[in-house]
Amino acid sequence: MKPGKQTANSAAELLVRHGERLHEYFQTIRSRHVAAPPRLVEAIQYSLLAGGKRLRPALVLECAAACLAKPDARKHASALAAAAAMEFVHTFSLVHDDLPAMDDDDLRRGRPTNHKVYGEAMAILAGDAMVTMAFEIIATDAEPAVVGPLVKELAIASGPEGMIGGQVLDIDGENANLTLEQLQRVHRMKTGALLTASCRMGAIAAGAGENHLNAVSEYGRHLGLAFQIVDDVLDVTSTPEQMGKATNKDAAKGKNTYPVLMGLEASKREAHDQLMAALSSVDELGSAADGLRNLARFVVERDA
Amino acid sequence: MKPGKQTANSAAELLVRHGERLHEYFQTIRSRHVAAPPRLVEAIQYSLLAGGKRLRPALVLECAAACLAKPDARKHASALAAAAAMEFVHTFSLVHDDLPAMDDDDLRRGRPTNHKVYGEAMAILAGDAMVTMAFEIIATDAEPAVVGPLVKELAIASGPEGMIGGQVLDIDGENANLTLEQLQRVHRMKTGALLTASCRMGAIAAGAGENHLNAVSEYGRHLGLAFQIVDDVLDVTSTPEQMGKATNKDAAKGKNTYPVLMGLEASKREAHDQLMAALSSVDELGSAADGLRNLARFVVERDA
Repeated sequence: MKPGKQTANSAAELLVRHGERLHEYFQTIRSRHVAAPPRLVEAIQYSLLAGGKRLRPALVLECAAACLAKPDARKHASALAAAAAMEFVHTFSLVHDDLPAMDDDDLRRGRPTNHKVYGEAMAILAGDAMVTMAFEIIATDAEPAVVGPLVKELAIASGPEGMIGGQVLDIDGENANLTLEQLQRVHRMKTGALLTASCRMGAIAAGAGENHLNAVSEYGRHLGLAFQIVDDVLDVTSTPEQMGKATNKDAAKGKNTYPVLMGLEASKREAHDQLMAALSSVDELGSAADGLRNLARFVVERDA
Repeated sequence: MKPGKQTANSAAELLVRHGERLHEYFQTIRSRHVAAPPRLVEAIQYSLLAGGKRLRPALVLECAAACLAKPDARKHASALAAAAAMEFVHTFSLVHDDLPAMDDDDLRRGRPTNHKVYGEAMAILAGDAMVTMAFEIIATDAEPAVVGPLVKELAIASGPEGMIGGQVLDIDGENANLTLEQLQRVHRMKTGALLTASCRMGAIAAGAGENHLNAVSEYGRHLGLAFQIVDDVLDVTSTPEQMGKATNKDAAKGKNTYPVLMGLEASKREAHDQLMAALSSVDELGSAADGLRNLARFVVERDA
């Protein structure tokens, strides 16, 4: 079941296609905020348009597609709003994570981090603005019936029991010895919650029933775990040039990682097992979920 | 039309009553987040329960009351959710504002600022979490029909064209000579947007029609201006003990203020004129708006 070059290409093509759609939509969003201070808009755009894989929005859009029986322009619009909101929240978290008081990183996606270019105050405010904009986007562009569920999903996944809570645990866990179970809790919150929410928000936007919602939730949960394990592995095995950011920094900071806790080979096997579990979660969705299958393989096979 | 002691007491009593209701609700919200890291919850509670006037939630609740023809438990619940969300966003803005990279304040409401107690990383994350929680509260507890409108109102008022945008302009304006018009724009965004949104969210929660919504919007706009002028005046005329934070810091930082631009006496007159305009905005709401009238007088007459 190892993916060949063709599968990897399909995922890459899919990411590019969704990325372009998202990029166009970002322009629409920008055009609605003409009264915002230009330098704030610039700082937001700097990080938002810095590239990146756009994995989360692709998951939103592919989960929506997998759950949609037939094309539906309004549901597509809801999914696109959810996808953009998710990328705004993800980007905000990177900008704040890089701050001197946090991870203190100079490099992100191959470019100077936001605060290196715009200063700390602006980076804090640009991050803050991205959060409020995420919710504005959903409230403005999603179908009224799904605004509440989408807002709730995104808010919980990014809040104190999700991503932000995970970042706190991550900071607390530095230089402490975590068990594998504790490490998994950190990851489930820090990165898993948003990845799972991406999948769920796509299904919600598509008006999915309980069964399909559960299927993509399970998919997202396994994918999230696989994603983090691969991230930890890449931090050990990749170069800064490949990653567009500093590598080997986990070990330098005394961070707990899968390779540290279970060894490199066992980590790779675990990532593969999680991939298999993710794939079987969406069995019932048939060929509509082929995009999700490609994305899952891409996440585990990527080298950056 | 100068308020006597009795009116001031009424506003104070009203703030206490709404504050207590809000405080109880905060406990409910906290009890829903048992999976959040305890230290993060503690940092959030530290700033959220630090006191303060609770003016914004009181505006939400009083505007809802002014627009409600008869008591309605579900609409009250929506208003309470909106009030709490507003206080979460306001508190987040104070925590981030106090950060070393921003205003670098050691004292807030008479106590050490959040980052002085919990460190910068935690203060950043606690502020971030308060934003996501604000939207979670609305999506969880407001009536489905008003979730979208409330989220949109709060997101826009706190975002790049509202509060956060105003903070950027405020930082940019330090040590620059602003015209009165430019100063008013800063304030309209930095503090006015949230105060106006508080009023509008109360009306929206109450299911108000266009006329009432417009009336409380006007009231909020004038109140917001009055509030900021009085804030600037108090920075000159009050002691740190009265304010619970450093005073005279505007001048020290070369900030543009109403007293600097138009003189102390003219500033006081302008605050009074804005109070009169706020009061006449809600004429049509009759005795249901008495609470709003007391609050407006309180804002202009306060000495801290």
